[in-house]
Amino acid sequence: MKTLEVDLGNRSYPIHIGSDLIDQPELFSACEKATSIYIVTNTTVAPLYAERLTKTLGQLGKPVRTIVLPDGESYKDWKNLQLIFDDLLKFGADRQTMLVALGGGVIGDMTGFAAASFMRGIRFIQVPTTLLAQVDSSVGGKTGINHPLGKNMIGAFHQPVAVIADLNTLKTLPARELSAGLAEVVKHGAIADTEFLNWIEANAKSLLACETSAMAHAVLRSCEIKSAVVSADEREGGIRATLNFGHTFGHAIEAGMGYGSWLHGEAVGCGMVMGADLSRRLNFITQDEVDRLTKIIQSMNLPTDPPKFGAQRYMELMQVDKKTEGGQIRYVVLEKIGKAQIKSVPDAQVIETLAATGAV
Amino acid sequence: MKTLEVDLGNRSYPIHIGSDLIDQPELFSACEKATSIYIVTNTTVAPLYAERLTKTLGQLGKPVRTIVLPDGESYKDWKNLQLIFDDLLKFGADRQTMLVALGGGVIGDMTGFAAASFMRGIRFIQVPTTLLAQVDSSVGGKTGINHPLGKNMIGAFHQPVAVIADLNTLKTLPARELSAGLAEVVKHGAIADTEFLNWIEANAKSLLACETSAMAHAVLRSCEIKSAVVSADEREGGIRATLNFGHTFGHAIEAGMGYGSWLHGEAVGCGMVMGADLSRRLNFITQDEVDRLTKIIQSMNLPTDPPKFGAQRYMELMQVDKKTEGGQIRYVVLEKIGKAQIKSVPDAQVIETLAATGAV
Repeated sequence: MKTLEVDLGNRSYPIHIGSDLIDQPELFSACEKATSIYIVTNTTVAPLYAERLTKTLGQLGKPVRTIVLPDGESYKDWKNLQLIFDDLLKFGADRQTMLVALGGGVIGDMTGFAAASFMRGIRFIQVPTTLLAQVDSSVGGKTGINHPLGKNMIGAFHQPVAVIADLNTLKTLPARELSAGLAEVVKHGAIADTEFLNWIEANAKSLLACETSAMAHAVLRSCEIKSAVVSADEREGGIRATLNFGHTFGHAIEAGMGYGSWLHGEAVGCGMVMGADLSRRLNFITQDEVDRLTKIIQSMNLPTDPPKFGAQRYMELMQVDKKTEGGQIRYVVLEKIGKAQIKSVPDAQVIETLAATGAV
Repeated sequence: MKTLEVDLGNRSYPIHIGSDLIDQPELFSACEKATSIYIVTNTTVAPLYAERLTKTLGQLGKPVRTIVLPDGESYKDWKNLQLIFDDLLKFGADRQTMLVALGGGVIGDMTGFAAASFMRGIRFIQVPTTLLAQVDSSVGGKTGINHPLGKNMIGAFHQPVAVIADLNTLKTLPARELSAGLAEVVKHGAIADTEFLNWIEANAKSLLACETSAMAHAVLRSCEIKSAVVSADEREGGIRATLNFGHTFGHAIEAGMGYGSWLHGEAVGCGMVMGADLSRRLNFITQDEVDRLTKIIQSMNLPTDPPKFGAQRYMELMQVDKKTEGGQIRYVVLEKIGKAQIKSVPDAQVIETLAATGAV
């Protein structure tokens, strides 16, 4: 097992990465002061891991309950968040109750937001069971739900007290979700670490085969990169926004197709291809580098052809994205491979990218 | 105009108290960096003050929109909170948008929670137009909405960037709401300042008549007491809970009667009578002091006879209150007049209080 620390002063927390961690009660020691523990999970993950985790947490001598939500991005809304609150209140949860998010990004985001707002804030632990959640969404404290007019529009910054990434849970992940998670792994290399990107390129097959040693490195290095950025800029005033590389285009694809149609990672993968094209138009990277990044994304079995919504619809969809300020869309572009920056770009150039990548 | 500062490090903010403040654009200088301003108000307050405030904010050269919610505690729920988000997203609000809460406690709590969770946090200004909001709810950053199973169960700590208490807005307040606000004024004297309680007792008539000089003192001293407590304990780990004197019983009354039947201040006034009786049973204060406090509350035209729900129902209703921890209800009691403390009390003693005050 490897442990790294997200350094956020009195909100610092450990990320544990390894095999069969959900069987180790000592990793959940933050529950010691809890009056009760509620596992929040979904209909897919519950039959796989809820019983094992309940057994582990039961050894801490606290009452443990499980709340099971429907599975999928389309359920990441107020109505399903309310199911968590209903259960917490019905069964007497209080300010010392600990929530444990057992699942992917949707479960983590919803459980985190429930923890942020139940009685104005209780503690929670992330137990991410998808690659996307292990390398990205479980780290950094972004929580929230979707609004019909935009993704993650309602939420909070609320840090977990621990992240426990059990690599063995990835073995049950469908291939499509594994690929979606690899999109964020590629992103971390592209925006922050050329050497890591080289390693990803060389180890694509091992990653797609979910080999434990490859996965351990991919998760650890991703968490290191992400937690360093989060430590420097917790509330996304500056550098943290570079983690959104591929996300402005990606969110437009997700929203335009209807949440849940493309997986988040698929949309981000395709969005990175678009973001790379835009970076080239700004004379930051070469066409060869765009082609290389596109090939790496393709090698992860991710789509690289955006849906054809047309330029106007894309601009509308991106306008509502949170990275807009004063009506101005701000894009994350690659200054070079391994380094990102935030930039306002004239609409005309963005439309060129939309046309060149087949979005129009 | 008097200005006092709530001292919370980089989240510090001024409270301005005086007459006709909503006409003074310089008090809203925090809007300078805003891309747009949304006033959130209700159907009662909008016709009285929305136009004046819009004119004032218009002088800052930003787009100003108004969102009008239905008026009342019974609308302090997710459905109406959603109306704020809908409007913000429909009209292109972004992370630099400023919300302005124009109204009483419900508008302040809902606008504050909307600001806390829209795009994971934007800024807001409180313009409290009721006495309750000016002396209590607009100060301290508690925001939230009700859940069918409990009051303020969903929310956030989110500090405003300014509180602007215009004493002239109190002139349009119905007598019943003025009295409800005076309950919290009495509370501040009872828990923290004997001299202030003496002054309240001597000036009950001027306060009920809403005389500006009396009101100015009542609001200023209440804000001083509350902001000192909040500065010492922002997230209610300890001393801040003493501000909940009368609230455990009060919340039970509000919830038991159905939100909106008793005004919050009415329930708190009656709850303080019950809290005083409990304090006497713990040998903290004398029966004479209980009688005196009861008389002061009565002199504000507040009810002091609790509804007869019976002991079991009261205990159930109080059990769900946030001050519960590990199933143990924690009460705020008066150690003496002018000083409060938090205490776990055996159910038997609480039931004696319920019986003695006519709640059974």
